[in-house]
Amino acid sequence: MISHDTTIRVLYRDTDKMGVVYHANYIVFYEAARNELFRSIGLPYSDLEAQNIVMPITEVTSHYKAPAYYDELLTIRATVKELPVVRMIVEYEVLNEKGELLNTGKTILGYVNTERMRPCRAPEEFIAKLSKYFE
Amino acid sequence: MISHDTTIRVLYRDTDKMGVVYHANYIVFYEAARNELFRSIGLPYSDLEAQNIVMPITEVTSHYKAPAYYDELLTIRATVKELPVVRMIVEYEVLNEKGELLNTGKTILGYVNTERMRPCRAPEEFIAKLSKYFE
Amino acid sequence: MISHDTTIRVLYRDTDKMGVVYHANYIVFYEAARNELFRSIGLPYSDLEAQNIVMPITEVTSHYKAPAYYDELLTIRATVKELPVVRMIVEYEVLNEKGELLNTGKTILGYVNTERMRPCRAPEEFIAKLSKYFE
Amino acid sequence: MISHDTTIRVLYRDTDKMGVVYHANYIVFYEAARNELFRSIGLPYSDLEAQNIVMPITEVTSHYKAPAYYDELLTIRATVKELPVVRMIVEYEVLNEKGELLNTGKTILGYVNTERMRPCRAPEEFIAKLSKYFE
Repeated sequence: MISHDTTIRVLYRDTDKMGVVYHANYIVFYEAARNELFRSIGLPYSDLEAQNIVMPITEVTSHYKAPAYYDELLTIRATVKELPVVRMIVEYEVLNEKGELLNTGKTILGYVNTERMRPCRAPEEFIAKLSKYFE
Repeated sequence: MISHDTTIRVLYRDTDKMGVVYHANYIVFYEAARNELFRSIGLPYSDLEAQNIVMPITEVTSHYKAPAYYDELLTIRATVKELPVVRMIVEYEVLNEKGELLNTGKTILGYVNTERMRPCRAPEEFIAKLSKYFE
Repeated sequence: MISHDTTIRVLYRDTDKMGVVYHANYIVFYEAARNELFRSIGLPYSDLEAQNIVMPITEVTSHYKAPAYYDELLTIRATVKELPVVRMIVEYEVLNEKGELLNTGKTILGYVNTERMRPCRAPEEFIAKLSKYFE
Repeated sequence: MISHDTTIRVLYRDTDKMGVVYHANYIVFYEAARNELFRSIGLPYSDLEAQNIVMPITEVTSHYKAPAYYDELLTIRATVKELPVVRMIVEYEVLNEKGELLNTGKTILGYVNTERMRPCRAPEEFIAKLSKYFE
């Protein structure tokens, strides 16, 4: 399992007229957290891109439990529980500074080889480096 | 059942470096389609707001089947199949100009009374006007 | 001179907690209006792209006079006053349904050849087709 | 004078199909930098809001000199050079990790009392706390 916490300060840009974070922005927060998760273990997503692999999203789910407000410092916890060989499932928890759970979510990503524009498996080297976290 | 098609022209702002519409933007397209669905039957969302009712999102699901590209004119079909008394389930289909189904999704919305900041049922008048579509 | 009006319905996604359209979103509305301006005269921006020309923004200015609110149908008027040979200056006016002028702006765009990744002039054919509007 | 550097990691959400940061997103980066500038001196914007003061943007200018790319860690330098009594002028510089200047910008903000919905001067206490930086 790999897991990492990323913090995001809520800006005006994130809010809507209801005075809370606009729902679609949580999906963007997930991207930030996913990006930092892989950077935190020395495997930044940009390394995959350098090998002509991109990871399109195939599925998003998000459950909204309580609102987030302007200027709060949110924690976005991203977790991968299974070795992502043919696809990657990332789960998210969004918490405010009081530790309240505001949102949970999940994204499923595939691997696509950009030279052939076809789905593929994760690069062997990527999986080799990741496998130690999934024993 | 109520259903309505809204068209959206894909802009640079909607795309990402993969050259396709960024995944979180489909969730925004859903909002546009939902807004137009209710306007199309003469019950714009802003009418509910004038009655101190807002409809926060409680759940989003989205399945990505094929990419959308810059300058395409997308059709976002929003459909409500059940009379939304205590919550509203809206389903979406996103199609390109060739009629290909690119994405399907669902949002669940609740009703909140903004004076008491508590969940509530849909206003009776709203349901009365909607009920003829759900017989 | 070429000029065209595009309408945009204000969504939750466009607003912020002040209850009005978030300032940076006007810059996005400009893109929508610019896109439709060129489509309206049969010269869509995607045609330039097909010739390996992109038009990066080099300057943006925006003046905010009055707020825009949720669910308003805004008119974004985009105008090009000079034949855009080496650069294109597009001016914008944003009006609400009462005809009030909410915002004025300007963007300056250059031409870049994506094969050589170097600034260039507008393609001759593009200018030839445009020139009749600038006599 | 007050000045502060904020860093922002470029995500997919920030980029467009040209492979670079979408121009309107710089205006959003300015907000993040402005927010952190005032937090850095112990005067967060949310304190003004608690006094029923909001600061709408009245003018934005942005000059784009070179592109920013995915996964770069950008520095957004926000600077206020004059004591912001009746309005606040914030200037911005955006630099990449090599120290290259990618963008410069300026925003002008007013003060509005949300109880009377009228323009006002900065609160005396806010100016008193700021004045030591502007001698």
